[in-house]
Amino acid sequence: MSAPAHHQPPKGTRDFYPPEMAVRRHIESAWRKASIDHGFDEIDGPTFEHLSLYTVKSGEGIINELFSFRRAGGEDDYALRPEFTPTLARMVAARAGSLPQPIKWFAIPTHFRAERPQRGRLREFIQWNVDLIGVEGSQAEVDVLSTAIIAMERLGLTPADVRVKLSHRGVVAAALHALGAQSERLAEAFALLDRRDKLEPAEFDSRAAAIGLGASSSKRLTELARTKLAITSDASAIAAALGCTPANAEPLVELAQRLIVAELGAWCDLDFGIVRGLAYYTGSVFELHEASGSERAIAGGGRYDKLIELFGGPSMPAVGFGMGDVVLGLLLRDRGKLPADEGATLLPRPDVFLVSAGAPDAEQLLLQLSASMRRAGLHVRHTYKATRNVGKLLSEAGKCRARHAIILGAELEQGMVAWKDLDAGSQELVPVAEVLARVKEATARA
Amino acid sequence: MSAPAHHQPPKGTRDFYPPEMAVRRHIESAWRKASIDHGFDEIDGPTFEHLSLYTVKSGEGIINELFSFRRAGGEDDYALRPEFTPTLARMVAARAGSLPQPIKWFAIPTHFRAERPQRGRLREFIQWNVDLIGVEGSQAEVDVLSTAIIAMERLGLTPADVRVKLSHRGVVAAALHALGAQSERLAEAFALLDRRDKLEPAEFDSRAAAIGLGASSSKRLTELARTKLAITSDASAIAAALGCTPANAEPLVELAQRLIVAELGAWCDLDFGIVRGLAYYTGSVFELHEASGSERAIAGGGRYDKLIELFGGPSMPAVGFGMGDVVLGLLLRDRGKLPADEGATLLPRPDVFLVSAGAPDAEQLLLQLSASMRRAGLHVRHTYKATRNVGKLLSEAGKCRARHAIILGAELEQGMVAWKDLDAGSQELVPVAEVLARVKEATARA
Repeated sequence: MSAPAHHQPPKGTRDFYPPEMAVRRHIESAWRKASIDHGFDEIDGPTFEHLSLYTVKSGEGIINELFSFRRAGGEDDYALRPEFTPTLARMVAARAGSLPQPIKWFAIPTHFRAERPQRGRLREFIQWNVDLIGVEGSQAEVDVLSTAIIAMERLGLTPADVRVKLSHRGVVAAALHALGAQSERLAEAFALLDRRDKLEPAEFDSRAAAIGLGASSSKRLTELARTKLAITSDASAIAAALGCTPANAEPLVELAQRLIVAELGAWCDLDFGIVRGLAYYTGSVFELHEASGSERAIAGGGRYDKLIELFGGPSMPAVGFGMGDVVLGLLLRDRGKLPADEGATLLPRPDVFLVSAGAPDAEQLLLQLSASMRRAGLHVRHTYKATRNVGKLLSEAGKCRARHAIILGAELEQGMVAWKDLDAGSQELVPVAEVLARVKEATARA
Repeated sequence: MSAPAHHQPPKGTRDFYPPEMAVRRHIESAWRKASIDHGFDEIDGPTFEHLSLYTVKSGEGIINELFSFRRAGGEDDYALRPEFTPTLARMVAARAGSLPQPIKWFAIPTHFRAERPQRGRLREFIQWNVDLIGVEGSQAEVDVLSTAIIAMERLGLTPADVRVKLSHRGVVAAALHALGAQSERLAEAFALLDRRDKLEPAEFDSRAAAIGLGASSSKRLTELARTKLAITSDASAIAAALGCTPANAEPLVELAQRLIVAELGAWCDLDFGIVRGLAYYTGSVFELHEASGSERAIAGGGRYDKLIELFGGPSMPAVGFGMGDVVLGLLLRDRGKLPADEGATLLPRPDVFLVSAGAPDAEQLLLQLSASMRRAGLHVRHTYKATRNVGKLLSEAGKCRARHAIILGAELEQGMVAWKDLDAGSQELVPVAEVLARVKEATARA
C-alpha cells in the first residue's frame, strides 16, 4: 500500500471541499425547492439494492456497468444503484395498496456506474429524480416539465441556455407506420432512429430495409430524425412535419397547448429525433439540452406506463425524469451562472465575528456571547489564534465574509462593545446587554 | 429471481417514504444548522474509497466488517465507507499546504457496515461528522461539543434526555499510572477499562495483573471505570475521584471551566469509564448517551492529534465526533420529540391549493395561476381528479395541509375568486389580478 494512493479519491469519484460542496448544495436546493413548490414529496432508498432488481428491466447486460458485491460470508448479490427508477418502482409496488394517489415523489440520491469516466460522466454522481405516478393525462407531463424548467430558472438559466426537446412515441410511431414500418417491428424502428448518428449510411439503409422501409422511406426516416419545430399546438403543422394525420398528432397537441398556457413554451421545441434509449417509455419522451447541443443531455424522461407493473406492482401510469449534477454543473460554469470563485461566495456568511482585543474579562465574555448567539440561531465565528491585534482579527472577519464584527475592547469598562457593520463600514458603541438583540434585528433585516 | 424479493430493501437498509424522509431531513437540518452556526463548512467525499484507506488505521481486521468490491475487469479494491474519518484525513492530507487553518468541517454522509443488523445498528446509516483541525487548546473541544449540544436542543432534547459524558485519556493515564500500570502498557490498560463489562471478573483480574496491577489495584481500576461526577472545574475534586494529582487533572479542569462559562455544563458529566474503543484518541474523549443509559451511544468523539499524520499529512491537532441517525431517531421517538404521526406533519405545507369549480375558463386560469405562483416560489397544489365538486376538493386541500384554497368558481364572471384561509376558516372574494400578491403577502406573514 503506497501512501500517495491515499491522497486521491477513487477514479471517477469526487472530493467535495467546502466550495465544491457549496456549489452542490446550490444545485440541490434549486432542485428541492422546485420539487416542493410543485407538490412533490422527497423520498430516498438504499444506496445498494439486490442485483436482481437491476436485471428485471435492463437484462443481464447491465451487470458489467454495475459495481456489484457480496457481504463476506453472505449469499445475496448486491449492486450500487446505477439509477433510481428500480428503487422507486419497488417502493411503489411494496405499498401500492396504501399509498395515497397520485404519487408525487422526488429524490436526490447518489448513483454509480462502472464505466470509463469522461467529460460529463463520472462513476459516482448525483441525480435528481422526479416522478408522478397515477395520472394518465398530460397535466402530469406539464407538472413534471414545469418542475425541471423552474429549477433551471432558479439556477439563473434561460431559454437561451437550455432547450427542452419533446417528442411522443405514439405520434412518431404513427409517422413510422405511414412510412411503411411494420407494426411488429416498431421497437427496431425506434432503435434505428436513436442510433442514426452512430451508423454508417449503408448500414442504416440496410437495417431500414429489414423493417420494411425502402430507399426513399429510409431517407425520410433520417429526415424525420432531424425534424425540429418550435412548439406549437397546431395539429396540421405537426402532422405535416411528421407525415402523419392531424388526429395522430393529438397527444402532442394537447401537451403543447398546456405547456404554452403555463408559460413554459419559450423553453420547448418539438424534436422527433428524441427517442430515449431505454425501452420502457410508452408515450411522451423529452430531454433537456444545452442550447447549442454540444454537451450530453442535462436530463431525460418521459411517460412509462408499464414500469410499475414490471416490478410486481399494479398497472399505473407514470411520468418522470432524471437530471444529473455533472453536465448541469459544467453548463452552469460555462454560462457564468456560478460565482467566479467557483463556490466560495456560495458558502453561508457569518452573522457575527467576535473579536477579543485582550481587555480583562474579554475572553470569558467572548465565550458567553458566542454561546448565547449560537443558541439563538446566529452564525458566529471567532479566531483561534493567540493574537489580540484588532486589525489582524478584522481582516480574518473580512476573509470569512462576516456581516458584523463585535470588538470586546477597552470600552468594556463602561459596559460597551464596538459594533462594526462590515458591509456598510460603519461603527458604533453598543451596551453589552443589547448586543444579542441588535444582532438578531440586523440579521433579520439582511 | 423471485418477485417478492423485489419488494424489500436489502437487509439492514431502509426505504425512506415521505414521512420517514421528513424525519430524516428534520434531523439533518438541525445538524446542518448547528454546524453552520458554529462556523463549520460542509464537505463530502466519495461513497466508496480504496479498501487500503481503511486498513491504515484499523488494520486488516476491519475487512470483514466492510462491503468491499472490484469493478468488473478492474484491479483496484474498493469498500463502501464505514466511517468518515479516513476520507476526512485523506482530504486534509491532500491539500494540507493550501487549506486555510483551522479547518472546520462537517459532513452528513451515508455509511455502511457489513454487520448483523440490530436495534440501533443498521448496515446503512447516516452519520454527522464534525471536525476541528489545527487547534491545540480546549476551545476546540468546546466548539465541537457546543455544536453537538445545540443540535440536541434544536431537536427538542434537554439535559434530562441526553448526557454528554466526558473523560480525558491523559488524565486517566495519570490515574492508571498512579495505580501501578506500566507506562508502556497503558494502551492495554485502556482496553481493559473499555472492556470491563464484557470480561469475567477473574479474567479481568488476570489481565490487570499482566499489566502490573495487583488485586487491590485491579479493584480500584473497576471502581475508576464506574467513577462519574457532575462537571466541575475543581481540580482537587477531580484528583480525589481519580487518585491523581490536581496538576494531572489540569486538562479536564480547563475544558470543564470553558464548558461551564459557555452554559453547556448542565448537559455534561465527567465519566472515567468513557474510553472510546478506537486506538487513535490522544486527549479528551466523550460520548453522548440517552440519559438512562439504556441505548447505545448517540455520538462519540474526542481529540486525535496523530491521525492526519497517519494518513500521510502533516502533524496537526484535531478534535471531532460522529453522530448516527439511528440511535438518535429511536431516542427522539421514545421521548415524544417527533410528531405523533411519525413525520407526516413534518412535510412541507402547501401555500395554496387551487380548486377549479368547473366554471368556463377555470381550467386554463388554474394552469396559469399555478404556473405563476410556482415561478414566484410558492408551494402550489391542485387535484388530478376529474371531480369539480368543491367540497371534495377542499377536503383534498385539507388532507395535504394547505394553508389557503383559491376557488375558481362562478365569481370568475366578475373577475373574482374565492379565497379561503384554511387555518382561520375565513373566506372572501379577491380579484384575480390580485391573487398572486395576496398569496405572497399571506405566506410571508406565516
